[in-house]
Amino acid sequence: MMELLLDDADTVAAARRLHPGEAVADCLARAAWTVIAEPGDAVAGALIDALGAPEALSFALDDSASVRSTGHVDARAARALKEGRARWRPRATPKAVRDALRAAVDVDARLVVPGDPSWPEALGDLGPHAPSALWVRGRAELLVHEPRVSMVGARAASGYGEHVAAELAGDLATTGALIVSGGAYGIDGAVHRAALGVRGATVAFLAGGVDRVYPAGHHRLLQQIAEEGALVSEPPCGTAPTKWRFLARNRLIAALGQATVVVEAGWRSGSLNTAGHAAALGRPLGAVPGPVTSASSAGCHRLLREYDAQCVTSAREVRELWGQADAPPTGQDVADPNRRRVLDALGTRTRLSVEEIARRSGMSPDRVRAVLGLMHLEGAVAVEDAGWSRSTGTPGR
Amino acid sequence: MMELLLDDADTVAAARRLHPGEAVADCLARAAWTVIAEPGDAVAGALIDALGAPEALSFALDDSASVRSTGHVDARAARALKEGRARWRPRATPKAVRDALRAAVDVDARLVVPGDPSWPEALGDLGPHAPSALWVRGRAELLVHEPRVSMVGARAASGYGEHVAAELAGDLATTGALIVSGGAYGIDGAVHRAALGVRGATVAFLAGGVDRVYPAGHHRLLQQIAEEGALVSEPPCGTAPTKWRFLARNRLIAALGQATVVVEAGWRSGSLNTAGHAAALGRPLGAVPGPVTSASSAGCHRLLREYDAQCVTSAREVRELWGQADAPPTGQDVADPNRRRVLDALGTRTRLSVEEIARRSGMSPDRVRAVLGLMHLEGAVAVEDAGWSRSTGTPGR
Repeated sequence: MMELLLDDADTVAAARRLHPGEAVADCLARAAWTVIAEPGDAVAGALIDALGAPEALSFALDDSASVRSTGHVDARAARALKEGRARWRPRATPKAVRDALRAAVDVDARLVVPGDPSWPEALGDLGPHAPSALWVRGRAELLVHEPRVSMVGARAASGYGEHVAAELAGDLATTGALIVSGGAYGIDGAVHRAALGVRGATVAFLAGGVDRVYPAGHHRLLQQIAEEGALVSEPPCGTAPTKWRFLARNRLIAALGQATVVVEAGWRSGSLNTAGHAAALGRPLGAVPGPVTSASSAGCHRLLREYDAQCVTSAREVRELWGQADAPPTGQDVADPNRRRVLDALGTRTRLSVEEIARRSGMSPDRVRAVLGLMHLEGAVAVEDAGWSRSTGTPGR
Repeated sequence: MMELLLDDADTVAAARRLHPGEAVADCLARAAWTVIAEPGDAVAGALIDALGAPEALSFALDDSASVRSTGHVDARAARALKEGRARWRPRATPKAVRDALRAAVDVDARLVVPGDPSWPEALGDLGPHAPSALWVRGRAELLVHEPRVSMVGARAASGYGEHVAAELAGDLATTGALIVSGGAYGIDGAVHRAALGVRGATVAFLAGGVDRVYPAGHHRLLQQIAEEGALVSEPPCGTAPTKWRFLARNRLIAALGQATVVVEAGWRSGSLNTAGHAAALGRPLGAVPGPVTSASSAGCHRLLREYDAQCVTSAREVRELWGQADAPPTGQDVADPNRRRVLDALGTRTRLSVEEIARRSGMSPDRVRAVLGLMHLEGAVAVEDAGWSRSTGTPGR
């Protein structure tokens, strides 16, 4: 496979265009791996880690290569490799790789591979499930922007959900955060739009190839993200989105964000899958609460109850998820119970003696005198010959 | 004081009516303590614990009694006692006690004291801040009903808050829980009404005397609670509610409930005070979420963030707070990724070979065959000479 690809001048030219630089063999091999393995294939990931992408490709497709020769001697690894080969072979044709490269060139995509300045090291937390490469349309450098927050939610969002999503994303993007989402209808669309609306940074991870604008109704939005932000995908161009690929895509959204926020989600929403990945990766997880009468918030409440998600109600609280502190929190009024009891006893019209205030408040006359003295200094109480009263304008209950 | 009260035949007769039984001196002394000390007076509580209520009363009001004689020798205790005496004396007249007894008789109240069958031992968790007695109109035995749940919230509740409060309280009362609240406008009123509406049990703790129907707009509701549930207060009849007494009353609501639920609360709502008491007492604390755009839910969200409250969205989840389990939770669908990938590859119209499904799904042909076999048994896929297809009626995405 590698020889066939490297021997073809058009293929090499395409690879150089998709990934400028010297490492053509690595780039071609990684592109080929995105074609022959489904996202998250841990056997492929382990093999690439162990041998490097080109060698792993030759080894994976070469019948004569012995398992023993790689040092993978245990029976489980041997079986996993055998099964992997059975998965990869049906797709492993030079034509499939060439078609993917050509389609990527057609939409002016780039291939980003580990070691590139734009490669997000955060994806390394996925271990052997990390992608072998990413296909990107637009500003690939956004993948390493900081801070990054993943915001996801239901496709069937409510007006409330879309409103809150837009408010939060607009505020977060304005204050410099990259908004990562999945390009879907509902919450995803609302956060991307809000980020673009404030000329902020946003990245959409797609389940199919970056040449496939899915969903169709987001054609213009995804086009705008490709121009001003970035469309990113693990499967190569030409790949249709499938349910499985949506789930696999979710792990990338969870891994890229320094925190993940679920804005609105039904009880079985796919967003809970993203949240589960974020929790498993140790990323801070936030959930926006909503009315308990709204099925669209049931999944968020479930995250609060079952996933130990943090309740977030504002952009400030979202920033706190990754440890970014805003202005110091507003101080709490420490209400002095004695003041409250004296104020309770006083009126604005009647004048009371210290003894009467003591009786009413259940405090000693000495204590009443001391508290009245302080409150008098502050103007909270007034005194005349007839006795003490509450100053007009003092807050009551 | 004790001699003057016990020597008066009317006073003793009133005491026997308010608390049938032999312990007249203890009953009179505790009634007197509710008159002379404000709710939660820890010095009074400690003195009553140490000496018994009648002896504590004599000691508190007798100038000649030396602090040393009780064994309270340390300077701090001596000063606390001296300050206590200065607090209590302005109110300590036999007339004040007699007025309180007479007013209680007039509304057919009862005095419930520690050791009575209706005395809730749960209040003991308040230590020296526990009440010396409780004034009750209605069914005093409800104080020891189980399970008991305290439900509180904002006076300025939204339609959403009142709706959810009524739904939860109605369900909880129907399934046998006592609904404890504070008789106020808004959420409190909604939960009392819902409990009464299903002929359930409810208790209202008032900040003033049980003869004072406060707030005035709840005259009929409180009257109904006095008849079908119970009105309970720590201060004696004739006492006006004050801000301080509302706060002190909150600790009783928190202590009586086996769990406390805040349904709706503003950022600085008094309900947070009740919630704080519940948390300090180690009682499970629940908060009902709401729209983040609603100021009426800001306090609940604060409880979720700052007080580690549990998010509760249904009566079942409230019951879980005190460990009551309903029917076993509905099982989670464990979606098999291989089935999903095969289904993703299939259509309902086209017929595909195993090899084509393997290529589309990125699975090995052997695995595809095995999964297809199982799914065929379940009727999820169909097979003909031309190949495999998805059965019509199989859920898509």
